[in-house]
Amino acid sequence: MSKSLAARFRVFTLNCWGIRYLSKHCRERYEMIVQLLSEEKYDVVLLQEVWSEQDYHFLRSKLTSAQPYSVYFRSGAIGSGLCVFSRCRITESFLYRFSLNGYPYKLHHGDWFGGKSVGLVILKLQGIIVHVYVTHLHAEYCREKDDYLPHRLLQAWELGQFIRHTSKTADVTILGGDLNMHPSDLGNRLLQCYTGMKDSFVETEKFEGSEEGCTLQSQNCFATVGDSLSFPSGIRIDYVLYKGSRGFPVKCEHLMTTSGTAPGKSIPYSDHEAVCATLSVQKDWDGVVGTKHEEETNPQLVDILNEARAEVKIGIHGAEKVRYSSGRMAVLGLVLLLLEVIMAIVPYLTTLPENSFPKFSFYILGMVAFAVTLLAGILYVFHTIEVKMLQGTEDQMRNTIQALQEKLRE
Amino acid sequence: MSKSLAARFRVFTLNCWGIRYLSKHCRERYEMIVQLLSEEKYDVVLLQEVWSEQDYHFLRSKLTSAQPYSVYFRSGAIGSGLCVFSRCRITESFLYRFSLNGYPYKLHHGDWFGGKSVGLVILKLQGIIVHVYVTHLHAEYCREKDDYLPHRLLQAWELGQFIRHTSKTADVTILGGDLNMHPSDLGNRLLQCYTGMKDSFVETEKFEGSEEGCTLQSQNCFATVGDSLSFPSGIRIDYVLYKGSRGFPVKCEHLMTTSGTAPGKSIPYSDHEAVCATLSVQKDWDGVVGTKHEEETNPQLVDILNEARAEVKIGIHGAEKVRYSSGRMAVLGLVLLLLEVIMAIVPYLTTLPENSFPKFSFYILGMVAFAVTLLAGILYVFHTIEVKMLQGTEDQMRNTIQALQEKLRE
Repeated sequence: MSKSLAARFRVFTLNCWGIRYLSKHCRERYEMIVQLLSEEKYDVVLLQEVWSEQDYHFLRSKLTSAQPYSVYFRSGAIGSGLCVFSRCRITESFLYRFSLNGYPYKLHHGDWFGGKSVGLVILKLQGIIVHVYVTHLHAEYCREKDDYLPHRLLQAWELGQFIRHTSKTADVTILGGDLNMHPSDLGNRLLQCYTGMKDSFVETEKFEGSEEGCTLQSQNCFATVGDSLSFPSGIRIDYVLYKGSRGFPVKCEHLMTTSGTAPGKSIPYSDHEAVCATLSVQKDWDGVVGTKHEEETNPQLVDILNEARAEVKIGIHGAEKVRYSSGRMAVLGLVLLLLEVIMAIVPYLTTLPENSFPKFSFYILGMVAFAVTLLAGILYVFHTIEVKMLQGTEDQMRNTIQALQEKLRE
Repeated sequence: MSKSLAARFRVFTLNCWGIRYLSKHCRERYEMIVQLLSEEKYDVVLLQEVWSEQDYHFLRSKLTSAQPYSVYFRSGAIGSGLCVFSRCRITESFLYRFSLNGYPYKLHHGDWFGGKSVGLVILKLQGIIVHVYVTHLHAEYCREKDDYLPHRLLQAWELGQFIRHTSKTADVTILGGDLNMHPSDLGNRLLQCYTGMKDSFVETEKFEGSEEGCTLQSQNCFATVGDSLSFPSGIRIDYVLYKGSRGFPVKCEHLMTTSGTAPGKSIPYSDHEAVCATLSVQKDWDGVVGTKHEEETNPQLVDILNEARAEVKIGIHGAEKVRYSSGRMAVLGLVLLLLEVIMAIVPYLTTLPENSFPKFSFYILGMVAFAVTLLAGILYVFHTIEVKMLQGTEDQMRNTIQALQEKLRE
């Protein structure tokens, strides 16, 4: 027999919905989460939406014996909301901020202020090098008219690239978090196909928990499932993905989600359900021979990338339109401002009488023109960055398709 | 004999100073660069400050036979200015944008608009996997009072992290570009110590070119060497760094810089000098046995990281001060605005006579208050992001020191 069990560990992920003073029963729920983590002693805990650093410090102070090692990832104006707790030492950590993440002026959505990112921590878990990634992608506020689809797709692509480039020496790679994508969504397919990672819900040998593994359940009293008609039981948007390596094949033995209220409590842990995967890692003595991380070329990837490119192109088109409007507005404001300046100066330079425009309206108009020029100018720069980043993504996707096709022809 | 020559290649880097309509003799210099690259047939060409995509397309169209493969990295509002040309196929590319990069309101410096980044391309050069990084860090405008030092240090740290995490499976790793740091600057020492990369100028067997390898020379007619009294011959801020791996030790056989005007021309290629390194890679048959990328722990790194942490802390302090001022200004503006709203509403709600404040000043004041609130609010958010990112960097450095100390104790 050339295989033996090398390690078994449990990975836990939960979107904590931790907006201080806004999320309901925030402190109470954090205490419930602490109790769960302390009792269950998960090996790796991936949390999202821990927006307040004070809450992170509270968790850390309570988990010193269950999960003594931790990292909090700072990003954006509020924070990335991401943190990792671990039973074993974290040797390294690294953060990648996504290039695009919504719009700062859409205050009611607020994703922009969170600086959505992917955090990497490297662990030596039971002698095996594990690269653990935690992430939270841009929310989907309206499935029918999803303004953020290009941004989320770009995030999924960057997430895939980041994992691909930084996990090459890992024995085991794990990604957990709130992807804000349904299982068959384009971004999800792209991510899984590009990284070669597998969905623990699909692969698990045994499953316990909510119907169809939904993590945003209609029966959760805090959750708001956007389209409850199309998805009566809820949707699955929180994931544990994993991949082994040549010497270390991985299996998902057991997958569990929480469902409804917490045991003995009247409220659930969060508006999302937690996901917990038990992964077993084999040591494959035959697999160690040869190159460890030979990259496989999945022919499906070409189709998915083409589909993604089309979607990104729509995003570029939309961003260009908004950029054009902002630019036009800025130019109009500037022209108005210049006209006013000329009108104000002319009487001093010539013998013409002072303009008869009412002074009051004149100054108000000047101020408005100034404000419009400035704000529209800022918007123009912002949307130019958006266009550039989407174009860059489309470019990278095209290059990847080309490289894949050449590889497949070989 | 267990070693044999596996490959020899030439890496070229140049900051092109390609600001359309602003840089002197821009088109002419691009044509000179094309001529040089076509004649010399460098294996890898790393260019910075190719700000215009049209100029990149011009270069690409002219280099189809000398360096037929290329990548242009888009980032920020203008572009990252980075591109790579290569004689052999580029199999993958990836961009990492630095978290901080100056201030958008410092229009006269303008670095923020460039979205400074590090670009990675992966090549299979003469059978060897080479990871090539091209970068351009934030400029230093005043060495005595360098407002951007914390940002540049953060960039050097993120650059180091990015290289460290993405180069683990490379046979040879190369970094080229304009680091905007002197050889002994803290960020440079941090970068080299953290990644284990070597400076080709220090290591080369043979050198030809400018005095002390300076790439910003006082005798270059376009260059402005900030402090020409302390550095009469100029400064060295453009680099080719490299590292091999266990099976593939690398040597720098020859290093060359351009100096002054181009041969047969009356102007130089750019305001910077180009650097060209000839690297030879050995195949070490003994080294292949064992783990390929065992990470070495350099005890010096702890001291450098402590020094860097102190510098970042100064940056945090400065950023917090500006954030506080912006916040205070926003609050003052808001209070004034609210007062005006109250003053305007009160006469309608009560029997009091209308306020006697002159209408004209009243509205002007309202507009000013609104503009101040909005702008100061935007600034507050911007500097909050700055504080967060610097704090995150300090955090990561502290964690790295801890991990290093534990490793050294083992």
